[in-house]
Order: sequence, then structure tokens, then C-alpha cells
Amino acid sequence: MNSFGTIFTFTGFGESHGPAIGGVIDGMPAGVAIDLGEVQRQLDRRRPGQSAITTSRSEADRVEILSGLMEGVTTGAPVGFIIRNSDQRPADYSQLAEAFRPSHADYTYTAKYGLRDHRGGGRASARETATRVVAGAFARQALAAMGVTIEAYTSQVGHLTLSEPYTELDLSRTETNPVRCPDPGMAVRMEALINEVKREGDTIGGTVTCVVRGLPAGVGDPVAGRLAARLAGAMLSINAAKGFDYGMGFEGAAMRGSEANDPFVPGTVPLHTATNHSGGIQGGISNGEDIYFRVAFKPVATLMRPVEAVGRDGESVTLRPKGRHDPCVVPRAVPIVEAMAAMVILDAVLIGRCARI
Amino acid sequence: MNSFGTIFTFTGFGESHGPAIGGVIDGMPAGVAIDLGEVQRQLDRRRPGQSAITTSRSEADRVEILSGLMEGVTTGAPVGFIIRNSDQRPADYSQLAEAFRPSHADYTYTAKYGLRDHRGGGRASARETATRVVAGAFARQALAAMGVTIEAYTSQVGHLTLSEPYTELDLSRTETNPVRCPDPGMAVRMEALINEVKREGDTIGGTVTCVVRGLPAGVGDPVAGRLAARLAGAMLSINAAKGFDYGMGFEGAAMRGSEANDPFVPGTVPLHTATNHSGGIQGGISNGEDIYFRVAFKPVATLMRPVEAVGRDGESVTLRPKGRHDPCVVPRAVPIVEAMAAMVILDAVLIGRCARI
Amino acid sequence: MNSFGTIFTFTGFGESHGPAIGGVIDGMPAGVAIDLGEVQRQLDRRRPGQSAITTSRSEADRVEILSGLMEGVTTGAPVGFIIRNSDQRPADYSQLAEAFRPSHADYTYTAKYGLRDHRGGGRASARETATRVVAGAFARQALAAMGVTIEAYTSQVGHLTLSEPYTELDLSRTETNPVRCPDPGMAVRMEALINEVKREGDTIGGTVTCVVRGLPAGVGDPVAGRLAARLAGAMLSINAAKGFDYGMGFEGAAMRGSEANDPFVPGTVPLHTATNHSGGIQGGISNGEDIYFRVAFKPVATLMRPVEAVGRDGESVTLRPKGRHDPCVVPRAVPIVEAMAAMVILDAVLIGRCARI
Amino acid sequence: MNSFGTIFTFTGFGESHGPAIGGVIDGMPAGVAIDLGEVQRQLDRRRPGQSAITTSRSEADRVEILSGLMEGVTTGAPVGFIIRNSDQRPADYSQLAEAFRPSHADYTYTAKYGLRDHRGGGRASARETATRVVAGAFARQALAAMGVTIEAYTSQVGHLTLSEPYTELDLSRTETNPVRCPDPGMAVRMEALINEVKREGDTIGGTVTCVVRGLPAGVGDPVAGRLAARLAGAMLSINAAKGFDYGMGFEGAAMRGSEANDPFVPGTVPLHTATNHSGGIQGGISNGEDIYFRVAFKPVATLMRPVEAVGRDGESVTLRPKGRHDPCVVPRAVPIVEAMAAMVILDAVLIGRCARI
Repeated sequence: MNSFGTIFTFTGFGESHGPAIGGVIDGMPAGVAIDLGEVQRQLDRRRPGQSAITTSRSEADRVEILSGLMEGVTTGAPVGFIIRNSDQRPADYSQLAEAFRPSHADYTYTAKYGLRDHRGGGRASARETATRVVAGAFARQALAAMGVTIEAYTSQVGHLTLSEPYTELDLSRTETNPVRCPDPGMAVRMEALINEVKREGDTIGGTVTCVVRGLPAGVGDPVAGRLAARLAGAMLSINAAKGFDYGMGFEGAAMRGSEANDPFVPGTVPLHTATNHSGGIQGGISNGEDIYFRVAFKPVATLMRPVEAVGRDGESVTLRPKGRHDPCVVPRAVPIVEAMAAMVILDAVLIGRCARI
Repeated sequence: MNSFGTIFTFTGFGESHGPAIGGVIDGMPAGVAIDLGEVQRQLDRRRPGQSAITTSRSEADRVEILSGLMEGVTTGAPVGFIIRNSDQRPADYSQLAEAFRPSHADYTYTAKYGLRDHRGGGRASARETATRVVAGAFARQALAAMGVTIEAYTSQVGHLTLSEPYTELDLSRTETNPVRCPDPGMAVRMEALINEVKREGDTIGGTVTCVVRGLPAGVGDPVAGRLAARLAGAMLSINAAKGFDYGMGFEGAAMRGSEANDPFVPGTVPLHTATNHSGGIQGGISNGEDIYFRVAFKPVATLMRPVEAVGRDGESVTLRPKGRHDPCVVPRAVPIVEAMAAMVILDAVLIGRCARI
Repeated sequence: MNSFGTIFTFTGFGESHGPAIGGVIDGMPAGVAIDLGEVQRQLDRRRPGQSAITTSRSEADRVEILSGLMEGVTTGAPVGFIIRNSDQRPADYSQLAEAFRPSHADYTYTAKYGLRDHRGGGRASARETATRVVAGAFARQALAAMGVTIEAYTSQVGHLTLSEPYTELDLSRTETNPVRCPDPGMAVRMEALINEVKREGDTIGGTVTCVVRGLPAGVGDPVAGRLAARLAGAMLSINAAKGFDYGMGFEGAAMRGSEANDPFVPGTVPLHTATNHSGGIQGGISNGEDIYFRVAFKPVATLMRPVEAVGRDGESVTLRPKGRHDPCVVPRAVPIVEAMAAMVILDAVLIGRCARI
Repeated sequence: MNSFGTIFTFTGFGESHGPAIGGVIDGMPAGVAIDLGEVQRQLDRRRPGQSAITTSRSEADRVEILSGLMEGVTTGAPVGFIIRNSDQRPADYSQLAEAFRPSHADYTYTAKYGLRDHRGGGRASARETATRVVAGAFARQALAAMGVTIEAYTSQVGHLTLSEPYTELDLSRTETNPVRCPDPGMAVRMEALINEVKREGDTIGGTVTCVVRGLPAGVGDPVAGRLAARLAGAMLSINAAKGFDYGMGFEGAAMRGSEANDPFVPGTVPLHTATNHSGGIQGGISNGEDIYFRVAFKPVATLMRPVEAVGRDGESVTLRPKGRHDPCVVPRAVPIVEAMAAMVILDAVLIGRCARI
């Protein structure tokens, strides 16, 4: 249950406190010239310690590609890679061996496996997502060669919500501030809020919005393979994700068909719609418009203040926070959302090649 | 791309205007005494023509089980079944052969396959979901034998939203009204709204809320197999679904960790939490609390008024509505949501048996 | 565990003594004009009662296609179909309810599922393979459109073995005799042997040889997706199959590399080899030469003479044979081997479209 | 196409001439105390340079486990591992960049991917199988905890065939000689033959026989999941494998049902058969007897003498052999066959837990 995809697949491994994390990218099409610097840059976007508002773990997070490339070009062979864990500090976690923290996976892992790797959360650690970013970086380079781009940004932190749709934002500004909000004024307010929450030893949630451009009509499948179903599954597999919607999304529940429908613009080639409440997908298949969706993230459960937990025998235990944790995961979730989207879209594109004789 | 699941799987087939729809349920555990009347009753809940607010297609929708049972007990063999299409009326759809309706799958199917079955929408027809209800009815009977129940209800129609959480509702009332809203007063208002919308030849969206009770802690998997990821993928595979969230969901984006965390109640056996913002899942794995989630549905695209479409060559075409269509899919989506949830949960329970030596 | 394939998939259902068997073909490419008469003709080749040497069950075995076609052309939607069981006679099997026959699946099914459908063997019945022939008939029509053909024949019955390789046989003669042996003289001897065995109430084994022509170089995958691995898995999934080899096969174990290697013929376009000990596959991938392989079948376990079995409590029981059974399954296995080969090859061709950017 | 299995899965990566090979074992049950020395010992059995009859590549082949263990016990998390390539010598392969060797994957990989990693054969290199041995070593330790053992041995080299069935051999002697033949006298003759072949710059084929003991009745599935189908697929995925048979195998083609059937021994608990022509599997499911099967290997294609190949443009080219290659792969295939069998059997055991409610 650590594999994603059907044709383009990714299988990850690793805990934050072992020697390395890594994975295998399989089904990567041959003939893609990979910019390894760009792969590393994507990984750097997810890295902790980028700014005052992210955790201060100082991991270098260098990806080492072990296979699947010849002179920088993909060969069709699986791409194995590792990222060493350079900053482990197992002592930070020793008190957790015997306690279940609230709203963590401590109890559920123990219930499932009969035992639990308490060092850094095992597979429940967000560190695992670093390997997805590497796999996504390969997928997006294949997609880029087809003219498909994927851009995500922070659209909400706590009560601060960007009111403009993505079409009215300049997404080239997303990376200009640590919260990854393309509206500079809102970015300042979001950063201030995160710092306030951090000072209180608390955490806060938010949303990421993601836009896929350049995908032609006809990608995706009916029924089980609907593009939004695959995207939803991929997004809800990210730590702390609590919700997904696309196009008009939850707002569509309050709308009427007469306002929600997207009329075609007669005579456009390829056929184009005047509005895009559908979010670029109809009947599970892309229609050539932009695909856009939101992912909701809860406030992370690890607070920097004493927390009431329970011990192995159900007794009350107070934990003193240690380790280093983000007060808000949303800015670092941005590249993860993009990576998962890239894997889903590339997989759907490849599967789509089999649709006709 | 018409199969769901890993161990408990369902593969469906059929268009609304062929001789029959149906499917194969595989991985159904042996030894479950199946109440076929109950399977039919679930199918009847999804059937059109149940009330004035649903489409008047008068299909009998009788399920015929063709295999996998001996004297009413599952044998472990795949369960094949069909549901005949008794009320076809292909003439209703003839004008669609040469036109693409807005916000339908007409254009995207053509882009994908190079041709399209225009009779009733092909696989994009909501009729396909009838087969999922049958498969879900088998899954829920296996789950019932384990003490797990699944109940969904209409929680929003247009601007009318149930403000109470499910814990303050009497879900035994859900089936007492045609909108499937457990609050009788709200049900009357929702029904009135749907009738108003219908008179206008329009459609309206809404949400379904679903609750899974009785699932013990330890079901689900980390990373790709997270329980919420599987549920989200399943729900977004339903026609007209635009969003999914669970537990605190999108509201969690505005919350702080100190209010969102679910403290354990010390000394409870099995361990219990005082609140359930998590929605019964932590780290992708059930924690023994109720699992609850919402699914947003858009207003269906087929209006009972003239609609601007485009022809094969992109020219403007006005379509006169024919056929019979629901002004609001939400009430009939309730059993579909339950069915998909049942399949996901049973599959996760079975996979979970392999977690330990 | 009733599904085959990755992109082109087939999921079957049904027991010989229920109302119908059937299945779902998914991933069938859109745009293939299907000759339904040819599908039925393939099914007829597998049908019992074709001659004195096959069982006399008089099933009509008419396939009913329920979906996935529009005006005879595949739409990309799943193809659901059923074949009714017209000649059931459950009484024949009543004595089996309480006994385990030797070398049958009676005991193993009971050990696995805790119960067993004794009527005609449940899923262990060879009747199940009829549904594979239908799925294979769709696959081979897609392959035919690409210039790929698949032909199998009986190459051994008991001690009677065709000594010529397929290249020295006229395979157009295969269907001219009931044993499906392309050598008319050998066919007469094989038929005589089967009749002798039948008179003795005994059964006999044999082999089927299969040839795939017209497949271009580059189809198949390394490692887990090796073409021979997929073929071997497909062939050993057929009832009574005990072995598989391809190219030089088991004879290769006694050969030297200097005699086994297949030298290229310089200057040929596409590149051609002077010999074909490899059987058309190198490194798991087709090389453009013919693919050929053998499948060994054991003598079926059901004898037309009294058989020592055991009862539920392990006590000795003598069973009197009833029902109707083939003295040699090999002639009827010929179309099944072809069908499985067609499914494997088409699936590999489709997957192969994803190999390059 | 580099993944094996359904619940217990293995995904490998790596070429012989990159920095490392490795893989991810997923679905490994939690709670198994792993003997890492034993994992390394299995890997050592496959290692080249063990004796004069195997290639002299001096790779240390040390496995590094990167995740999935806590204090030596599996946690249920995926087990990632790497094996560094310490002895690369890329110069050996430079002449291959522009030539296609006969009966190698050079041409077929190029046909598939449009390019080829010529350094050591890419994924077609037998080195890839080292990663399978590691995964198999984990699987066999889980199986050992259930009382299931797997033993393979060399049963044929060239014309030298062990005539005794495995039941008359002392398999504890298999590892006492470099050919891994449990009959010491035959081992001497086989070794002499391999040395003779080596002196001639030639290669030779052979067979491996494998025995699975201790598997209870009821493991495996009908139809697509038949145990022999999975074993056959796994075995034919090994480099140079050309055939598979189990139980009576190809000899069964010449037998009659009256001699091939395995009568039960009345009164045995669990039920036991007097003979085992079935090879421990009936209807695709284990019957509690030993499972045994053979795998045929061709003589490897790389000869230590000048070989006629063709260049990129189809022109004739003579290649001078370089590198180091086994004259007979069979002895080193023994642990690979065992590893693949262990993975298949463990996967089937885990899936089998889902058969009943």
C-alpha cells in the first residue's frame, strides 16, 4: 500500500529516522532528458528549514538517483533513488515509545500492526512525502515535454482566504514569499498569522489550490478511472489532508444547473467553453480547459506546548514537546500537491494512449 | 478502468440503452448468508421514479444474480449479475448523435475514443451506478456480520443546509421522506425547493453526509492506502460529485491544532476519544470512532429547457430537452454513497488481515 | 482472482450449474468493428458435443453481448456478456455433495472456503473457460486489425507426438479433424487412441502448441512483465495445464549456447534471425520472429469407471461416474490456449504504447 | 512492470553498471524477527565468483536495509534496500553500444524504447535478480515462521539429468558442491561438464527443481490466481528461463487418468494422498502435499568466443568476448528460483486470509 499509479507508478519507502528514505519510479517513458537540478529544486521546495515559519530540521535532502538514466536521459528502466536522513536525533522521540499522542497515528498503527516504530512517526511522518516530490519531479518533466504544466499555491491559512480565483492571480509570484501565496499583501498577513500561532505553540490549517494547464481534451477514464477520482485519492493520501474539491466544488452544491453549466464557444478549435465551473473535467475526462482543485489541510497535531496523551495502559500522560515541527504545513504542502498531481496526470495520459485501436 | 478495489473488487458494465447493465463482484468472502430481498431493496432506493422529485423512468430494475451463491450463501466464487434495461426509448436521444451538450461527457468521450455512444450517455449515464449499489449491498451484508453499519443522508440541497452534525440527528428518519433528509422539517423545505427548481426546468446541487459505525481501530493503510484516500477516490468516481471531505474537513483549514485535536479519554477500553474532529481516521487508519464524511454534488447538467449546444463542426445548436431527468440527484445519490463506502471499507478490512504475521 | 490483464482485462464469473456464466471485457480499444459471428464461432470450437470424442453435453452456448458495442463497433466501454447454461441436470452431481474425488478441487475448495459448490465443480469446472474464449475472440479481432494472428493445434495425445515443428505443418488443416491436429495421418491415430481410452472409461493427456505471427519487435516488458512470464501465467491458469515452455523450451536445457543462439541475418529490415530457438522473445520482449510455445495438459481426473473417493469424515467411498466428460481435453483446449494468448498479447501491445515519451 | 505480487509485493530497480541496485518490499507482515545474516547468506548464494564454474566478478554484494525494521523486527512498513555495484568496469561494454548481439535483449530493448542502456545489459542483466533474492529472503523468513520451507536444486545440466525424484534425494547435500546438485556423484559429473563447456568458450543449459513443504491445504485461488499460474509467471520472469512444469508436468501429457490420479488415504487427518502426481495443487489450490516444480534454463547467450552480431545499420560485426560470464547459470539460478517461489507462496498465504467471512 505504498504504491501509486497503474502505468506510471511510484513505490516509496523509508522512515524519518532510518538511514534513508527513497523509492522506485516505474513506467517512466524512455527518452526524456531529465534536468536533475530541477528535481533537486523541487525537493528543496519541500525541505524543512526554508524560513522562520517552517521547522528548523536542517536536512540537506540530497536526492541520489541510482538507476534508469543513461547520459541524463530516461531509458524506460525503473528509476531508483534514495535521500539520506542526515539529521536524526532519535533521543527526541524516546518519550513517545510508551505513549499515544492525540490525533496522531500512534494508536492506530499499534492497533493495526501490533507494534509501532515510534521514532519520528514511522510511515506516518510527513518526511515520507519527500520521496513523492522526487517522483513527481520526473513526471512533471515528462508532462512539460507535452506542454502540460502544474502550479499550486497557498489559498488559505486559518481564516485568511484568497478571494480571487486563480485566473485573477499572478502565479509567477507564488515562490516569492515563504507562505507560497501569489498575492503579496495576503502573503504578509498569512505569514504574520503563522508566526502568531507559532509563538502560542499552536498550529493552524489551510488550503492549497492547484492548476493544471495544457492538458488536451480526452485524458482520463469513465467510472473508476475518472480523473477527479484519481486526483482526490492522490490528494487525500497526503498527511493532514482533510478535503478535496475541483471546479465549482462544494460551492456547486448551492448552485443551479442553469448557472453552473459551461456553454461551449461555437466555432472554437479545439472546442472551448466560455466558463469553467466544471474544472476542466466532464464525465471523468479532460475537456481541454484548465483543471483546478483545492485541498484542505488540518492544523498539524503536534503542538509546541504540553499535551495530554495516554500511555500503553490507557493512563493519562503529559508530553513535553520536543523535536521541530511546522506551525502550518500548507506552504510545504504546495510542492507535494503538485507532485501528486503530476503523477496522476502523467499516468492518465499514458493510459489514454490505449483508448483506441 | 471499470474496476474498484484490491481484494474485494467490483467490475461493472453496461449502458442505459443496451439490453442490460451488470457486473462482477469478486473477492466476496465465503460463508455470508445473503438476503437477496435486501439487495433488491438497496437497488430500489436508487431507482428513478420513486417520487415526484425524481425522474419518471419506470424501470423495474430487478437484479438477477447469476453466480457465486449456493443456497443463499456466498461460496467465494465471483458474483455475476445483470439488471435489464426495460424502458429504453432510444428515440429520445437521436438528436444528441450530432451535438455536444454543455457540461456533459459528449465532447470528452468523443475526444478520447474518437466516437461516442450517444444513446443515454453511454458509461457517463448515472444508470451505471445501479450496478455499484448491488455490489455495495453485498459488501454491506458482509460488514453487517462484523458489526459495521453505513448510513448516509441528504445534508444539503441548494442553499438549504442541515446545521446539526450527524450526532444530533435521528438517522432512522432518513428514509421517511423522498429527499432522504433525517430532519423532517428541513426535508419539507428541501422538497419544496426541488419542486420549485423542477418547475423552472432547472436543476440544483447538494451534499450527502455518510457515517460508518462499528469499525474497530486498525483498518486502513499508510500512504497510498489511507482510508480517506480510498474513500475520496470512490466518492469522486460518482457522477456529478465535485468534492469530498471527512471529519472537520474544509472547516479544519480555519482551525487551530489546540481546538482540532481529539484528546483520548484515559482508561477507556478500547481507547476512545472525547471529540472526533479526525473523523475516525488517523494516519490513514481507523481509530475506532465513527468515520464520517461529506460528498458535494453539482446540479445535473441536463435541464428541462432549451439549451445551447454545439454540433460536430462546432456550430451553435439549440437542443429541446427530452428524456426524463432528476432536478436534484442528491436523494438518489444517498444509496450510491453508502454502496461505495461499503466496498471501500470491506476491502480495507480484508487487506487488514494481512498486516501481521 | 478472476481477472486477467492490466490494460486489456477480463473478469469472468459463473458456475456450470447456475443460470449463466459470463464476464466483463474492459480496456477493449474503441473503434474495432466486431464480427459477432466470428466470436460465436470461436465459442463453438470450445463447445462440448462437437464429436464422438468430446463430452455430449448439448449446450447451445450462445453468447449474448450486453454492452460496449454501438452498431457493431467497440466504443471503449466495457463489454459485458453472458452465456446461459441450458443443460444443467443438477441430479448428476448430488452424490458429490458429501465426497471428495481424487485429483479434483473438491477437497482444496473446501479447505479454502469452508464450503464448496459441488454442483458441477463450481469455479473449478472447465465450463468457466468458455467465457475466456469470448474475451479472447474480442482480443484477437483487435490483433487481427494489427496484422497479428494466433493459431494453436494439438501436438501430442498420450504417447503420440507430432515430431515436426510448426514450421513444417500446414496449420490450415487444424480444423479439418476433431482432434485439431494439422497432420491428417496423425489425427487419425490420435482419434483412435482417444476412442480406445474412452472405451476403457479412462482419460488421456496431451499438449497444445501455439504460434503467434505478425507481432512486431518491441512488445513485452523486462522483469515482471516479460512476455513469456505473462504467457506462462495465462496458460497455467487453464484447467488441467501442467506445463509451459516456449522456443527451445525444455530441450534448451540440454543444448549449448553455440547451437542455441539465433544469429541475425545481416541487412534484413526489420532485422531478422536465421533460426528461432528463442521463440520470438529476447529479454522478455518480442523480436519480430514468430512466438511459439507448448502447453502440457494432464489426463482429466474424472473417469467413467468407479472411483475410490473419501467422504467428509475421511471414510472410503466408491463413486459411480455420472455426468458427461471428455476422455481428452486437448482438442477443446486449443481455442482456450489461443484465447488466453490473444488476451496476453493485446494487453502487452497496449502497454507497449506507453514505453516512450 | 518491475513489480511482483498483490499483497506481498516487490518492486526492483537497478542496472549492473550504475551505482546500486535495490528495491522495495511492501506488504511484509509486521512482527517477523528478521535474521539479516540469513538474508545476506541467501544473497551470497547467488553471487558470482563462488567457484571456478561461475563468473569471476568479485562483487561484495552487501545488502543495506534502509527501512521497515525496528530492532530487527518488521514493522509492516515497506522495506527499502540497496546493493552497491562495486565492480563496474564500463569499458568492457563499450563495443556493445553500436551492436546487437544474437539472442540478447540488445535489439528488442532498442525496438521497444528507441534507445538502450548497453552498459551490462541494463534491466536484462542477470544482476537484477540479486534484488529478488533479498525480497525472497524476507518472504521465506515469514514462511518459516509458519512452518513452510522451500528448497531448490540443480536437476539437470546439459544431457546429465538426475533420474531420481526429489523424494529419493537428500536435499541437505545441495549446498555441499558448487553445482548445487544433491547427488554427489552426479554433482561431480555436472561440474566436469560445465568445466569442459567453459574451456570451449561455450555455455550450457539445465533445469532447477524446487520443493515447497509444509504449506497447508487451501492456499491459492481459482482461475486467474491459480497457484501454479502464479509460480509459472514468476519462474518465467527469470532470465534465461524457457519452461516450467509442476507435478507430473510434461510427462502427464503421456499419461492416463487412471495412473495419474492421486487417491486419498482414507482416515488421514489432515487428508493425505497416496501419490502426488498433482504436485500439491488441485484446482489451483494447495492440497497439503508437497508442491514441486521444474524450471528449464537455456544456455546463456554470451559465449567466450568471437560471435557474429550486427551493427546499428544491420551490417555484420564480429564481437570479441569481454566481461565475465557463467558457462552455466543453473547453479546460481537455484536461490533465485527459491526466492521467487517464496514471494509467490507468501503472497498467496496472505490473500488466502480473505477467503472467508
